Order: sequence, then structure tokens, then C-alpha cells
Amino acid sequence: MKLLSTWVEVPNDSDFSIYNLPFGIFSEDGNQPRAGIAIGLQIIDLAVLAEADLLEVDKHYFLKPFLNDFIGLGKGITSKVRLDIQQLLLNENSRLKDLPEAFVYQKDATMHLPVKIGDYTDFYSSLEHATNVGKMFRDPENALLPNWKHLPVGYHGRASSIVVSGTPVHRPMGQILPKGAEEPFFQASGRLDFELEIGFIVGKSTKLGERITTKNAADHIFGMVLFNDWSARDIQKWEYVPLGPFLGKSFASSMSPWIVTMEALEPFKVPGPEQDPEVLPYLAYEGNHNYDIQLEVGIQPKNAAEKVVSISNFKYMYWNMLQQLAHHTVNGCNVNVGDVMASGTISGKDESSYGSMLELSWGGKKSVQMGDGSERRFIEDHDTVIMRGHAEKGRIRVGFGEVRGTLLPST
Amino acid sequence: MKLLSTWVEVPNDSDFSIYNLPFGIFSEDGNQPRAGIAIGLQIIDLAVLAEADLLEVDKHYFLKPFLNDFIGLGKGITSKVRLDIQQLLLNENSRLKDLPEAFVYQKDATMHLPVKIGDYTDFYSSLEHATNVGKMFRDPENALLPNWKHLPVGYHGRASSIVVSGTPVHRPMGQILPKGAEEPFFQASGRLDFELEIGFIVGKSTKLGERITTKNAADHIFGMVLFNDWSARDIQKWEYVPLGPFLGKSFASSMSPWIVTMEALEPFKVPGPEQDPEVLPYLAYEGNHNYDIQLEVGIQPKNAAEKVVSISNFKYMYWNMLQQLAHHTVNGCNVNVGDVMASGTISGKDESSYGSMLELSWGGKKSVQMGDGSERRFIEDHDTVIMRGHAEKGRIRVGFGEVRGTLLPST
Repeated sequence: MKLLSTWVEVPNDSDFSIYNLPFGIFSEDGNQPRAGIAIGLQIIDLAVLAEADLLEVDKHYFLKPFLNDFIGLGKGITSKVRLDIQQLLLNENSRLKDLPEAFVYQKDATMHLPVKIGDYTDFYSSLEHATNVGKMFRDPENALLPNWKHLPVGYHGRASSIVVSGTPVHRPMGQILPKGAEEPFFQASGRLDFELEIGFIVGKSTKLGERITTKNAADHIFGMVLFNDWSARDIQKWEYVPLGPFLGKSFASSMSPWIVTMEALEPFKVPGPEQDPEVLPYLAYEGNHNYDIQLEVGIQPKNAAEKVVSISNFKYMYWNMLQQLAHHTVNGCNVNVGDVMASGTISGKDESSYGSMLELSWGGKKSVQMGDGSERRFIEDHDTVIMRGHAEKGRIRVGFGEVRGTLLPST
Repeated sequence: MKLLSTWVEVPNDSDFSIYNLPFGIFSEDGNQPRAGIAIGLQIIDLAVLAEADLLEVDKHYFLKPFLNDFIGLGKGITSKVRLDIQQLLLNENSRLKDLPEAFVYQKDATMHLPVKIGDYTDFYSSLEHATNVGKMFRDPENALLPNWKHLPVGYHGRASSIVVSGTPVHRPMGQILPKGAEEPFFQASGRLDFELEIGFIVGKSTKLGERITTKNAADHIFGMVLFNDWSARDIQKWEYVPLGPFLGKSFASSMSPWIVTMEALEPFKVPGPEQDPEVLPYLAYEGNHNYDIQLEVGIQPKNAAEKVVSISNFKYMYWNMLQQLAHHTVNGCNVNVGDVMASGTISGKDESSYGSMLELSWGGKKSVQMGDGSERRFIEDHDTVIMRGHAEKGRIRVGFGEVRGTLLPST
């Protein structure tokens, strides 16, 4: 890949390099939320560029509080907007240099959810995570259920409670059956967890009855975000049979604000794991569709330094996004622009790469050390959980920024 | 209740009596979908009434393709609109009589989904249904799982694939593990089922972190619809552990087009079943909150007469809607106007009142006779499934009309 350089200041370790240019929704000074692209420490206001005739898209697409309509224009147009901006940032004589009003510092902006989410689906596609959970809760010898290697297990999640990075989350109350008790109690969750995930944003809708194949699935994926699928393990444990997780998850999920496009992530494709047994033909695929994205999770106790508790990688996923989308629609289920589909917890093989406290503390049996000497089995009130992700190749870096959320006490 | 009479012709057995006046979205002659109220065989075009200054709501609320914004005005306003129209229909000298353009015959109109559905939740609140399923698939002696009588079990469903009555539904393809097989096959579902349900439409939004109590839950419920939660039992059986139903449900759910308001259903409240063990305080409630709504399901084979296969009643529900909403939000999960929450299959005590083919055929072991001499264990291609519901007290009848869907072959 050719090295590019821009006249805008971009720190060397910035996730938002000239190779990235992710889309998001921002506001500043109480102005209406609108579309932007991140570069270095700044945001480019797309409506200002459109107004100045630097883009071939009408500015009203950029003055909406969600990117759905813009994304719905299709990759032919959204890719061109991104590449046009890349050219403007490369060109030393760019007309963009005469538009200081197009730039806002990220530190001065408020970020919002980038899309209006219609439906949210959560998969369960990490072999290591599913195996760990199976070992803890079922049979260590037969940790995986019989269907797991035949289909990307997933379930419908709650779309309404997805919040943008930075939004505090309250510890949920709920029904819990304490160990040894005969009857459930109503109390605050005592096993509050994060789940390290990546979500993708659907970029092209289908009609009810249409199937997306693994061959054309890439057309339907606009980009990706970091995703923290907060989980209350004790609420989940009591409620989840037989219909799956419900209130143990629906109190909140947090999402990073910048959608990193599939084009920006293209250089970081790697082969996925071998799938044995062989998958059914509708799940077969060609080429490399895993992504080498380095991930980390930090916990920052109140008034203490952050401690990184997990270092994982998106390349570990057993089921890739093409397979997830092909499976999701093989029954004719329709998808819409702005739908979010998350990976499920991304755990690697060794302990330091587990993507949840449930696994890091092995069901609460082991403690995880914090920088201030305190210990965690699960997340405590006033802890901030921070997830970061980036891909890197030589001097080329494309990152997600972070998804961050502070846990507040129950109310 | 006082007997009312209107100058509009209403057949004696009409679901859409002067006591009902449900809201829906209709179009005719290719015009844009807009809001209406059903009376007898006709629809009243609310925008025409607003334009003529007969209603205290601006007509733009009625010219939208969904009722969400109107419903969001709150019950103070939506109830008044309904009562104002009732007065116009009672008054022999009504100005509405001079507005023939406000009336459209239902037979000339196309009905649409009445609301833009944000999130869809499906409960599992019939004791008889949960017991039947538990007997078939788990342990006849311990049919109910330990949590069932402590909380209204529910799960998130797919909102995008909810369709309005009349929309044909294709038999889904999917992964199925045939009896005795070691590996799954990709094939059309062979155990296609209906589920007789009633859904309620959320009428008032909450913010993330807010709880709805059983005391104020009624404020948040705008009205109800009939709901057919189509299910592919063989797909569901293979996929559903451990995260719940997914593709076995998400190919389609059908909804009746007219939202019957809670005000119209008020006279039909009845006590619910005794709940033993006693529920936790957040699920306790006062008063009568079950509804005596007679329900039936018919199957009409192609070119043959319809056969009624189930006669049930909504009053059988173990968990009522107030409890469902209090439970759903007890963890702080937010709800939005237009969210749909369905009851789960409504089965009664005896066989003739079971709300699914799974139960009527007892897992496919018994056949159900059709009028044309054919037999059904599950739904066959080109069968039409019709669900109807109404409440009745003396000469007062308030009904839902029907939700109807024809099953087409897989593609």
C-alpha cells in the first residue's frame, strides 16, 4: 500500500489516519447533530463541504441526526465521498484549506449514535468464548452444543437501549436466584460484566423473502464499530431458559461513535480458522474474510489508573460476517440499512485474551488485579470500561477510537 | 353500558361497532397511506375530518404512513379524537354527514402496518401453552421451568419481518436436524406452524433507566392487535439452544391492521388467574387486568372451505400486560411508541383451545381434520391461516377483525 500524507496534522498513533476516514454524527455548541468524518484530532463537517460543492451529494443528507439516508445511497456514492475527501486531504492546494469552518476539534464535539438502529442481532461466533461458557455452565467435556459448528448461533437483541460511547450505564435491578435459594429475590445485579464485541452496520436493505449469499454479503455491510454488550450474569442465568437472554442484556449496550468503513479495513483481511465439520453450501465462502484487528479492554476504577485486562483480536472469530449475514437471511428475514449485527464476545485462546469478566474471573472464582491494588471479579460501581481497537500494517494504522462507559449504581 | 346508535350502517355482527372505533393506516386508489378509524363496513379518513375542523389535531398527523406521531400525542388527545368521532357518529345532525369524501369502504381500501415498529418483544405468558410445550419437549412431570411462575418469560423478536394481515408468507428454508440424523440438512421447514397471540402497542415512550410500574403501565399501552407469530418448529428445535428462537421465527409475523384501543376494551376486563407462588412486589397489581376476548383460528386449504381448528380466549393469560411491561422495564430498558409486545401463544385448558398446531397435533402425532377431508399436522403450502377476535357483552361487540396469511411454497 502506498504511503499517503496529508496537510492536516495527524499524530503518528492516531486511529483516524488518512487511510481511515470513518463516518459519524457529531454536534458542537448545541448545534444540531450532523455528519462528519474523523481525521487526526479533528472532524470534517460534511455539510460544509457539500455546501461548498466539494462533494457530489446534497448537503441535506449530512444535516440529519443519523447516517441511514446517506448510507442508503449505496457504496458507489459513500465510497466516492470518502475517496473525494481523501484527495482533498492529500492535495496541498486543496480548496478544503480555504474552509476552516469545515473543521471541528473532536475534543469540542459531542458524538451521537451514528445510525438509527432498526433491529439489533447479537451472534455468538467466537469458538473460544462459546467453549469457555460451555465449560463453566454445562459439561467441560462437551462444552459446545451440537449446533454450534454448523451455524452461527445468534439471537435478537434490544435495539432501543443501544447508547453511544460515553453514556453512563446504571447497574440494573432484576430477579436473581441466589445460590442455594429456593425463591428469587429482587435486587441489583452482583455480576455485572462487559462483553468485548465488534458490530457491523448493514448498508443495503433487502425485502422480506430475499436471501443474501456469502458472495454478495459484502455489498450489504457498510462498516464496523466497537461494541460493549453489557451483561448482568445473575439476571441472565435465572431468566434465560428456554427463550434466551432478555433483561440480563437489554439494560444497555454501548457502541463506538465512528463507523470504520469496509474499504478502510480491506488491507487487514486475513484467513479465518478452518471450519470442521464442513459447513453447508449456503455458509461456504471464498477468500479471506476475517480481519486482523487488535482489541483491548481496560477497567478504570474511580480515581485510579486504567488497567488493561484483556488483549484480544477480531481475527479469532470462527464465523465471519458474510456467513452471519447469509445465515440471518437464509429464511427470508429482511434487513434494513442501520441494522446492527454484533459478533458476540471475542475471546482468544489464552486467558489474557478473554473478552468478558465471566471468563477472566472464570465465573467469579479468580480475581483480576487493578492498578490501585483492588481486585475485580465483575465490574464495580463507578468503574469505567474502555474498549479500543485498531488494525496496523507497517506505518498504516486504521482504528476505531474507543467505546467507553462508566457503571453507575442502581437506582 | 348505555346502548348507542349511529346513523352509519353497522351490521349487527360487526367488529367495528360504534363502541370500538379502532385506528389504522389505509390507502385507496394508490393514494398515500393515511390514518383512519373503522366503523361498520367503512373507514373514516381522519385527515378529511381534521381539514374540516372537526378534530382538534392538525391534519399532518393523519397524513403520515404510520400512527406513531399521533399516538405519541398521548391518551389525552388520542382518546378525545376517538370520542369526538363517536359523538359525530351518534349525532343525527352531525356535520360529518355533509362530508361523504370522509368515508371509504373497507373493501376498496388497502390496509398497511399501523405503526413503525421499533422493537418487538414476544412473551410466553400462557400457562397452558408453556405446560404443553414443556410436556412435549422436556419432562411431563416437570413441564414448567423453575422461573416460569416467577417472571413473565419473554425474548426479543425480529421487528423488520412483521407484516400486515393479508401479506403472503413463504415457507422458510433453513437448517434442520432430521430425527436420527447426525448432521443437519438445508431444506424447507416441514413443521410450519401458527401461534395465536395478541400484541399490544406501546403508546408512551420511556427514557433509558426509567421503570414502568404495574400502577402506571396502563398509561403506556395504546391498544391491541391480533398477532400470528409464524413458527418453523424444526428450524427452531435445532437452532434455539442456548440463546433462544431466531430463524425459526424471524421469517415473518402477521399483525391485524386495526389497533383496538384500551378504552374500547375497558368493559371486557376480567380477573386473571390466581398467581401462586406470590409474585415479587414489582409484579403485584390491583384490579382486573385480563380481558375476555374470544379468539378463533381457522385454516382454509386452497379451494376448500375454512375449518375452525381452535377456539381460545385471551382471559386465560397467566401474566397480564401490566406485569409484562413492569418486568420488561424493571432493569431500566426503555420502550418507544410503536413497540409491539405480544402475549405468546394463547392456549386454554382443553384441546380445542390450543393456540398452535404443535399443541393441536401434539407434536405432529395426531391429525387435525379439514372440511375437505384432508388432514393437517402442520400448515401446508397454500393454506390460509385466519385468526379472529372479539369481545361481547349483551348487544355490545368490540372486535379486531382478522389477521390472515396464506402460506406459499419456499423459494
